[in-house]
Amino acid sequence: MYKVDLNSDIGESFGNYKLGLDEEVAKYISSANIACGWHAGDPMVMAKTVDIAVGENVAIGAHPGFPDLMGFGRRNMLVTKEEAKNYVKYQIGALWAFAKSNGAELQHVKAHGGLYNMAAKDPELAMAIAEAIYEVDKNLILMGLANSEMIKAGNAIGLKTANEVFADRAYNTDGTLVSRKLEGAMITDESLAISRVIRMVKEGKVEAINGEDIDIKADSICVHGDNPKAVEFVKTIRKALEDEGVQIMPLKDFI
Amino acid sequence: MYKVDLNSDIGESFGNYKLGLDEEVAKYISSANIACGWHAGDPMVMAKTVDIAVGENVAIGAHPGFPDLMGFGRRNMLVTKEEAKNYVKYQIGALWAFAKSNGAELQHVKAHGGLYNMAAKDPELAMAIAEAIYEVDKNLILMGLANSEMIKAGNAIGLKTANEVFADRAYNTDGTLVSRKLEGAMITDESLAISRVIRMVKEGKVEAINGEDIDIKADSICVHGDNPKAVEFVKTIRKALEDEGVQIMPLKDFI
Amino acid sequence: MYKVDLNSDIGESFGNYKLGLDEEVAKYISSANIACGWHAGDPMVMAKTVDIAVGENVAIGAHPGFPDLMGFGRRNMLVTKEEAKNYVKYQIGALWAFAKSNGAELQHVKAHGGLYNMAAKDPELAMAIAEAIYEVDKNLILMGLANSEMIKAGNAIGLKTANEVFADRAYNTDGTLVSRKLEGAMITDESLAISRVIRMVKEGKVEAINGEDIDIKADSICVHGDNPKAVEFVKTIRKALEDEGVQIMPLKDFI
Amino acid sequence: MYKVDLNSDIGESFGNYKLGLDEEVAKYISSANIACGWHAGDPMVMAKTVDIAVGENVAIGAHPGFPDLMGFGRRNMLVTKEEAKNYVKYQIGALWAFAKSNGAELQHVKAHGGLYNMAAKDPELAMAIAEAIYEVDKNLILMGLANSEMIKAGNAIGLKTANEVFADRAYNTDGTLVSRKLEGAMITDESLAISRVIRMVKEGKVEAINGEDIDIKADSICVHGDNPKAVEFVKTIRKALEDEGVQIMPLKDFI
Repeated sequence: MYKVDLNSDIGESFGNYKLGLDEEVAKYISSANIACGWHAGDPMVMAKTVDIAVGENVAIGAHPGFPDLMGFGRRNMLVTKEEAKNYVKYQIGALWAFAKSNGAELQHVKAHGGLYNMAAKDPELAMAIAEAIYEVDKNLILMGLANSEMIKAGNAIGLKTANEVFADRAYNTDGTLVSRKLEGAMITDESLAISRVIRMVKEGKVEAINGEDIDIKADSICVHGDNPKAVEFVKTIRKALEDEGVQIMPLKDFI
Repeated sequence: MYKVDLNSDIGESFGNYKLGLDEEVAKYISSANIACGWHAGDPMVMAKTVDIAVGENVAIGAHPGFPDLMGFGRRNMLVTKEEAKNYVKYQIGALWAFAKSNGAELQHVKAHGGLYNMAAKDPELAMAIAEAIYEVDKNLILMGLANSEMIKAGNAIGLKTANEVFADRAYNTDGTLVSRKLEGAMITDESLAISRVIRMVKEGKVEAINGEDIDIKADSICVHGDNPKAVEFVKTIRKALEDEGVQIMPLKDFI
Repeated sequence: MYKVDLNSDIGESFGNYKLGLDEEVAKYISSANIACGWHAGDPMVMAKTVDIAVGENVAIGAHPGFPDLMGFGRRNMLVTKEEAKNYVKYQIGALWAFAKSNGAELQHVKAHGGLYNMAAKDPELAMAIAEAIYEVDKNLILMGLANSEMIKAGNAIGLKTANEVFADRAYNTDGTLVSRKLEGAMITDESLAISRVIRMVKEGKVEAINGEDIDIKADSICVHGDNPKAVEFVKTIRKALEDEGVQIMPLKDFI
Repeated sequence: MYKVDLNSDIGESFGNYKLGLDEEVAKYISSANIACGWHAGDPMVMAKTVDIAVGENVAIGAHPGFPDLMGFGRRNMLVTKEEAKNYVKYQIGALWAFAKSNGAELQHVKAHGGLYNMAAKDPELAMAIAEAIYEVDKNLILMGLANSEMIKAGNAIGLKTANEVFADRAYNTDGTLVSRKLEGAMITDESLAISRVIRMVKEGKVEAINGEDIDIKADSICVHGDNPKAVEFVKTIRKALEDEGVQIMPLKDFI
């Protein structure tokens, strides 16, 4: 039996600003990465988002980012390892309070944006994040880019790890994502995206951008809920996976 | 045997900005109210401050404030009850992560500045804060101005509460603090301040500004560590209390 | 010949967050109040918004607010008069740089949200804002709630002032707005809203919520561009005014 | 006759946090780089700092930085060129308002911390900053690291530029500063620091870290006012320069 988690970044509204169809996408995913108030989200949004996740029986993860609301946490910042570590702890704790209030537990932690991308390639930054998670709660699952330095750091420290894959992104032969600035970086053909994901889950393989097959472990598939079309795609990919005999379930049920 | 807690607001540095002699004052207090990154403090400061508190065997409390770093959380803000509740949850959680990382537990929560002052008088705001604490962890002690709405709200919801008194402040006959804008608001004579505190602890009485005696419960005395003279006063008041047979200990040991 | 200004708050997006149909509403207004990065807006948004205004020949005003992005500047904050004064100066200057870069000039200043509401009733706060404007550039027009303390302060200090009226709000007999919390506060009937505004402009009268006629000076009418329906209403009210022989033009052309 | 400017970063306090002996150092410098509220400073601090500068007849410059108060603007952030440009415009404008209120003019702009360092090496970022300055006011002087990309960009666009040198830093043979992480990066011997600066001003030469002489243009010398010893050094270096027949004056008087 094949198993996979469907995750989405939700809770990205802030104050008067609304972003994402959280209620809609929460119906189809198994894990939610909830913004913690630094790159997006605020305490009101976090409370509501945890409510939504709990109501839809979606597992809750902290989605810590850089202190850069203006840049939505997407811009690389040269913080020290110690700063990254404490920033991640802070944000995990902040979200924990809302999970705890709701009788829920945190399942995982996935870094956001610039922090995610930098840590995928930087072993020291990856280890700083892994340490933050481990020191706060060693039962938390670390989610990171499949095969990246994040996953290696999590495994090295003794955390359970979840390899994240992307349906809509092309891969280099070393398993890294093709930069969005390059042609062919985005898989825009939906049926191709779906068949690629199914193959990742069932065969552990994906065709890299140069046509070569590479190994890839797919514990969780990242999906989006920004707009109605994105939500529609989540429904479609979920059904396609189930039709192929792949069970969708939160990480904690199979990692 | 008389027992009382000595508390101080610490961890109020931010980034490049240093404030307070935290290492010094931590030697003489039994409980620390640690800023949570909103009105003061940041994750680096919080990590360091929790280290200091744990090292000195000082009990740790969250010190949540308004989202107003520029005003140091001292300015009243007309947030809704729901906002106040979620702001307090967020900040408790953030500090919890550092306590947890250190193998320590949170003992209490004390609101800061404008939030403290507003909640002392506003039963609904006080209840919002009490609910936040209760929902995150009903074993946390709520510290608030002695006899204030904060204490009433905490008691009503079923939290343990700690009445806080001030050595350096004059009281009105209803137990509220005399506004700093009025003459006589500050008790500047140190020996008078000390004798007033000893009487509060041992007799449960204090002379209000009009000369009348009022009842006051003193579970915790607020002291400061802003400058060397303030730290010296903490040593002096601690010794004076001990000389009078009053034991200094964290709230969790007697509340 | 009757003349009136149509103003709208624009440039309220922030970072990744989009708010308002600025390009659309800019086609129908004569003055724009542009957020200055404190309660909304950021430098990228300000640059783009000034471009839009200049492109549509809309006069530019600074729209300073409280340092409260999370609350969209709508929450009252008890800042000192000196703080309010310097906060307004800072925000005027920030917007000035974008106007200057574009070869444009600032026409006016209108406080936002909580600052607007507090200053409408508080003569000292109103004077602090008026002083800020006067000290930065005494040719700037101060826009404020018709007949409010803001207008009085502006007149007292020697600024040109613009009385702002609302099509969709009920008035008390003293000229203040009926609180949104009370029934009847909003004028939801569009044709009533329009006929009230026309009467304000042409007769200087409006029927207060108790049925009594009161005097009101209407130099500028506040309209919204939040959604397509709001923009449609702006077109409608503009046409209705023009059909009644009222010319729509920026404040600087008739104040 | 030799002429040079002495500049210092001042106005770096924030809210309740005090930093730097601004009143003291302002007595001995000819130009002040005033923080604009992003990496340090706030409107109250800016108002006061401009007052100090005007009172001491010190020329005023904007000191824009990254939106990173927590990191004091020292951390590199991968903002886009367009973002950098608009961030600089915003901050110039904000400070302009306080200068204008005081009857003073802005003399120059000097980027801060991470922005300064990145722009010294990145021609596109440097040009973005130069464009920001030029578009807001083409009479402003651009101050940047001597011989750096900042200076080149300023010259290319048609701004007057001021080459900044450091008394306390070692130089590489290409004119860049030796990284603080390397041994010998700091010139700790005060008399050596002073003789190096005098040679830079009078001969346009400095000995690089490898012992080789390099050309360097010294329009402005950066000094510090963080602590009493730093201020004492400013007095000493000023006197030493004057004793050598070097006149200290603001950039606008000789650039």
